Amino acid sequence: MDSNRDTATWLKKLQGVLNDNQALPESKYLQLATINHKNQPEVRTVVFRGFLETTGSLLIHTDIRSKKIQDIAANNHAQICWYFSQSREQFRFTGSIQVITAQSKQQSLRLQHWQQLSESAKQSYFWDTPGEILALDDEFQSHANQSNPTQPMSDNFCVLLFSVTEVDHLQLKPTPHIRNRFVFNRHGWQAYKVNP
Amino acid sequence: MDSNRDTATWLKKLQGVLNDNQALPESKYLQLATINHKNQPEVRTVVFRGFLETTGSLLIHTDIRSKKIQDIAANNHAQICWYFSQSREQFRFTGSIQVITAQSKQQSLRLQHWQQLSESAKQSYFWDTPGEILALDDEFQSHANQSNPTQPMSDNFCVLLFSVTEVDHLQLKPTPHIRNRFVFNRHGWQAYKVNP
Repeated sequence: MDSNRDTATWLKKLQGVLNDNQALPESKYLQLATINHKNQPEVRTVVFRGFLETTGSLLIHTDIRSKKIQDIAANNHAQICWYFSQSREQFRFTGSIQVITAQSKQQSLRLQHWQQLSESAKQSYFWDTPGEILALDDEFQSHANQSNPTQPMSDNFCVLLFSVTEVDHLQLKPTPHIRNRFVFNRHGWQAYKVNP
Repeated sequence: MDSNRDTATWLKKLQGVLNDNQALPESKYLQLATINHKNQPEVRTVVFRGFLETTGSLLIHTDIRSKKIQDIAANNHAQICWYFSQSREQFRFTGSIQVITAQSKQQSLRLQHWQQLSESAKQSYFWDTPGEILALDDEFQSHANQSNPTQPMSDNFCVLLFSVTEVDHLQLKPTPHIRNRFVFNRHGWQAYKVNP
């Protein structure tokens, strides 16, 4: 067992994989799982919006009217699955979600993300109907006019902050396969090699 | 609202997408979400093993010693997310899982799937350590010797039968986007157009 007091180990691995795969759609999309009010699992593809500064917390955009917002309000435990088919490796992140809304303290983060959106993505937050589509589709609209800071920020625009407490990293390319687990506890990040 | 008494509509769509994407890894992998004993969501990439005959039930292999088997025993509700990046469409399947073990009635189905495994995939079910890897990696071992019916079937080998009760099909390529929901109830399959 290795003790690591920061996220460096797994975060560096992930950043390396993202760098290697930046031309592929899979570097932008991941699967986010939550639990709904009927105590059933829900999983959908969402767009990865980067990390919170130097932390390993992952950022995702969504509309406050989307169904997952209600689900997260009742149970904020979540898991992310991120599979990279070229390098044949999978990251699974266990953690919890904080929803940054128009009423939250972190308005500078929210504003910064709003300003990076395309005009058409911004418009989508003013539409009548919410849905997963907004987050999923926004990536494809990035050719539109970027960052117009004068466009008023929609109250529907939310940033999901996914704080990671555990990472399962599985590499299928090497023989034998390599599997590492990283767990955050009161001593910081602990790294374990797991039999694949 | 359209009423459909069979799965034809969504199953035909999915089969068409699978056909169009058969050369891509995404036609083989999907993300399966379940709920664990701590009431937290879990999601991992698994290999799609086809449909149960002409039904829309999806088949997945796993090791009875894998963690998800315990999770499913406690809560068999599950959801599948299947995203196709080339055609920019996502299927989400809501349903429940039946685990077909060495003690189950459907031994012919289990045997049939066992016989289709490569030798190395069969071997993996005799290893000491279970894990997601077995299912995920098997696809890559298909160059190995196929179908040796004399190899005794491991008691660890299970087939997961995912019965679909709801489908959310989102197509992002057309403008405006197309979103369809299919719900199974006592009248059969009902189809709804949903605002994207």
